[in-house]
Amino acid sequence: MKTDADNRPPDGVGLVETQTVTLFEPPASLALECGHRLGPIQVAYETYGVLNAARDNAVLICHALSGDAHVAGYHDEHDRKPGWWDIMVGPGKGIDTNKYFVICSNILGGCRGTTGPSSLNPETGKPWGLDFPVITIEDMVKVQKRLIEHLGIDRLLAVIGGSMGGMQVLEWIVRYPEAVAAAIPIATTARLNAQSIAFDAVGRNAILADPRFEHGQYHAGPGPDRGLAIARMVGHITYLSEQGMHEKFGRELRRADKYSYDFGSEFSVETYLDHQGRAFVERFDANSYLYITKAMDYYDLAARHGSLEKAFQHVQARVFAMSFSSDWLFTPQQSRQIVDALLANGKHVTYSEVNSRYGHDAFLLEPEVLGRLIGSFLASTSGRPVIEDNGNVQPYSEAPAIQTAWTRQRVDYDRIEQLIEPGSRVLDLGCGRGVLLSRLIRNRRAQGLGVEVFQDAICECVERGLPVLDLDLENELSSLPSRSYDYVVLSQTLQTLRRPDVVIREMLRIGRFGIVSFPNFVHWKSIVQMIVTGRTPVTEALPFRWYNTPNVRCLTIRDFDRFCRENHIRVHRRIPLIVGRRAPIRILPGLRAEEAIFVISRQA
Amino acid sequence: MKTDADNRPPDGVGLVETQTVTLFEPPASLALECGHRLGPIQVAYETYGVLNAARDNAVLICHALSGDAHVAGYHDEHDRKPGWWDIMVGPGKGIDTNKYFVICSNILGGCRGTTGPSSLNPETGKPWGLDFPVITIEDMVKVQKRLIEHLGIDRLLAVIGGSMGGMQVLEWIVRYPEAVAAAIPIATTARLNAQSIAFDAVGRNAILADPRFEHGQYHAGPGPDRGLAIARMVGHITYLSEQGMHEKFGRELRRADKYSYDFGSEFSVETYLDHQGRAFVERFDANSYLYITKAMDYYDLAARHGSLEKAFQHVQARVFAMSFSSDWLFTPQQSRQIVDALLANGKHVTYSEVNSRYGHDAFLLEPEVLGRLIGSFLASTSGRPVIEDNGNVQPYSEAPAIQTAWTRQRVDYDRIEQLIEPGSRVLDLGCGRGVLLSRLIRNRRAQGLGVEVFQDAICECVERGLPVLDLDLENELSSLPSRSYDYVVLSQTLQTLRRPDVVIREMLRIGRFGIVSFPNFVHWKSIVQMIVTGRTPVTEALPFRWYNTPNVRCLTIRDFDRFCRENHIRVHRRIPLIVGRRAPIRILPGLRAEEAIFVISRQA
Repeated sequence: MKTDADNRPPDGVGLVETQTVTLFEPPASLALECGHRLGPIQVAYETYGVLNAARDNAVLICHALSGDAHVAGYHDEHDRKPGWWDIMVGPGKGIDTNKYFVICSNILGGCRGTTGPSSLNPETGKPWGLDFPVITIEDMVKVQKRLIEHLGIDRLLAVIGGSMGGMQVLEWIVRYPEAVAAAIPIATTARLNAQSIAFDAVGRNAILADPRFEHGQYHAGPGPDRGLAIARMVGHITYLSEQGMHEKFGRELRRADKYSYDFGSEFSVETYLDHQGRAFVERFDANSYLYITKAMDYYDLAARHGSLEKAFQHVQARVFAMSFSSDWLFTPQQSRQIVDALLANGKHVTYSEVNSRYGHDAFLLEPEVLGRLIGSFLASTSGRPVIEDNGNVQPYSEAPAIQTAWTRQRVDYDRIEQLIEPGSRVLDLGCGRGVLLSRLIRNRRAQGLGVEVFQDAICECVERGLPVLDLDLENELSSLPSRSYDYVVLSQTLQTLRRPDVVIREMLRIGRFGIVSFPNFVHWKSIVQMIVTGRTPVTEALPFRWYNTPNVRCLTIRDFDRFCRENHIRVHRRIPLIVGRRAPIRILPGLRAEEAIFVISRQA
Repeated sequence: MKTDADNRPPDGVGLVETQTVTLFEPPASLALECGHRLGPIQVAYETYGVLNAARDNAVLICHALSGDAHVAGYHDEHDRKPGWWDIMVGPGKGIDTNKYFVICSNILGGCRGTTGPSSLNPETGKPWGLDFPVITIEDMVKVQKRLIEHLGIDRLLAVIGGSMGGMQVLEWIVRYPEAVAAAIPIATTARLNAQSIAFDAVGRNAILADPRFEHGQYHAGPGPDRGLAIARMVGHITYLSEQGMHEKFGRELRRADKYSYDFGSEFSVETYLDHQGRAFVERFDANSYLYITKAMDYYDLAARHGSLEKAFQHVQARVFAMSFSSDWLFTPQQSRQIVDALLANGKHVTYSEVNSRYGHDAFLLEPEVLGRLIGSFLASTSGRPVIEDNGNVQPYSEAPAIQTAWTRQRVDYDRIEQLIEPGSRVLDLGCGRGVLLSRLIRNRRAQGLGVEVFQDAICECVERGLPVLDLDLENELSSLPSRSYDYVVLSQTLQTLRRPDVVIREMLRIGRFGIVSFPNFVHWKSIVQMIVTGRTPVTEALPFRWYNTPNVRCLTIRDFDRFCRENHIRVHRRIPLIVGRRAPIRILPGLRAEEAIFVISRQA
């Protein structure tokens, strides 16, 4: 006889059980942010994998609004649905239970085993309802911290969470800086924007307006199912992107091919929302929905600490912030605010805006890229990066604009390496897959950070254990604080920029020195070719054609000299080079050099 | 004593009155789309301005979901709020009541004077409630048509409407092609997407779930105010952009500077939504909300006619479609689908994606640019464009990328004009403010269309009465059907493109001939300058510097020859030119020409 278990992928964590522990027994109750005390607090949690002897392989996962402690595996043999992040947690998966001890607990205020408004109020013996004190993200994290201590763990290898789970991640690194080695806040924010608060308010209004809500004391009756369902429907719309919804439903009708001319649900998207609403009220408590959305609305790291910069002052964790391109609920811009504030404090931060069509829900729907990014970030945090760099530059064939630099022999890398003082802080703009940065870290003990936009290149940087920022050079360098680096490198990228003057101004704001390498476009061979053929030159150093070259700026060594002079930029070194020859050119460099490296700084 | 009237701007239409007419008296009742018949139908409407003797100056405005017949002016002296589009309708305004006879009627199914579900059912003597037949956009427009006939008007100068009003505009030009000279659908769509249907469904659910809804027979009781308010709240969120909401409210608290730790509305955005909800239930009927949103959901021009292209087959109106950059409810992409389908039918169409931070609400909040665009489109429809072109090219100083072409003497214009056969269809890519196109229309009787992205340039084209499309040359030319033009002109723009090869392929798909002009980058003066100075040349023809030139492609006459050869492009004419000299260069053109014009086509 076949059971449901036979249809399951063989690679999961298998059967798991939710465990329960009681913490904060009075008089050691928890002092909540709102001023009340709460205790005892029951906490439901699950764990996967094995805590190692050093107790340094624990990964805490923080769940979102409607999640629970059940992250992976199945509760019994007839269970059809695995835990909510089963795609990410298991043997060999992104969060590899062969390596890590994974923990997830239901949040304070929840309704899935942890104390919340549907728990019994010990004073009355009835469910708390609206008498439950208002809880905050801070309170939730304090409870998690106590749970971790209870499990005998002083320091987490990582805290990971998406959406509201990401808010908890931020609270962890701020509140317990010494207790977290790495943090991965995904598709989250340090404070909701007005639009998100508005959506939450609509959901709460729908619950509060339901006459069956009975001021929160609905436990004897049927409960405010219609109100809660409406709240969930609103939520679901915000979790999907418009494009994702269009691809999934379009204007398809559920049953007929003609309109029914009444007010029943007839479009597929309507019946989908109905179903989501109905399914949700089966498993979720309306009071918890009120409390948890309120906790999200209230969370504001910036207001609490004066500013987001100040909030992150004492962070010790390596942070990897992720956002999704089509997420309009927790936008990439909101993740970038987190990144900017961490950078302002000189913290170790990596950022990737993952390309996805799935909107906010992408954190549940993009296992491949998330698994690759999270897995390699955890690996390098544990001191075993996926790519142990040996310095060999492999040709790289994906993104065309990267090719420019990479398919060619990089004569400038050796020279740039020599120009960098050992132990310096180095920012590499357009770092590609991180080859130069790896060399500088290995050979010059540099503290390095890369900036890149191509997703695959970013993934490879993360696999190398390099911090990297998914930022657009021409528009987003304002993320980086002034005077935060010794050297800012722009290697063979200047000529591809729309606004090279702006980028150079930015690099000299960020770094003490700028190191710029670019092709010299008025090489003597080029001139001869132009006169003879009447065409724009195509050379070994500049192998592209006029219509497809990524090099949209033609400049020469003397052009750059003049630019520096006119813009109050000091030129410290000027190194004309020929491909395949290490020594700089001394005679007629303007005509003979194929490329050049400049070391520059702002004039005092 | 001062009255409210003293505070009003002096420029409005003043005191106005809503009028009422009864149409479709049985047995001549209206056959609705749903299969039922309805009649008599009472219609509430207002008019402003005077119908001229020729009866050809009537402009019909179609209102959106929550609008009514009261577009402009005040109903009495104590009236504090003018009509809903007072900023646009009045003497000297965008829709100038000194010139036009403006009409607006409350839609069928509404609750502001026109027959709808809150009207009395003649059979029962009670309000219709849910017994009212389901109505559609088509039904609404049929009623408007009858009203127009009643007013003695055969043909409207224009039909204008935003949002759901825009749907009515589309229905007008499809259903009554001979009755509309010009149509301005603003921020609208020919069919709602899944996300919009989902939001509508949530709103309806909130009303239907309100126990006071009483199956629509709530007129004796208090009515489903909470449900209707929630529906309105959801709507309001979708009308604003996230950025607009952030700027308006941020995370500001309404009264206190500390959280109240309860479930009252405390963020300003919450109290704003509360207010919007409360104000709405004062003036709107819940049943109407159900019927009107359902009419929007049902509207699908494409499904009804087989495709949007087929729907627009018989359109005669000049169409001006507008969208707003930050509108995520009725997106620019949806407007472009309308534009594409009109173009596929060779219709006269202008499109502008107006830059605005206000989201969907922008159509009520951008009086200046809308007034300019609508006003000049109406003027040219009446045969009196705002700019009567005399052919003088004035220097133009705003958008830098446009400057390239325009601040220079345009030697190529005269030549291009000579190359165009009289009476041809001409598409001008990067048409700027329409100078060349105007000349071609005036001097060569061309049928012209421009493509441009700079808003101010687009406005000026509309002022010249030119059709123009707000499209990105490099990514959006797919809007234009194959073989739809005799000539496609790309004048002094090729060298500014990131993907010139793609654009050339597109132009030869769209037109029989392509006319391309570009600077010849290997001019002898340039070569001498390069050798002598070692710098990228700066000449009279190419006055920019390497870092700020919009010319990101360097090509020569021979480069372009080779490109054509390799890409199976036939070169019909090759005209090397020197600035300030009309005759083409015959000796050493490759080195002596400053620019060149090519006439090309796809090889058969």
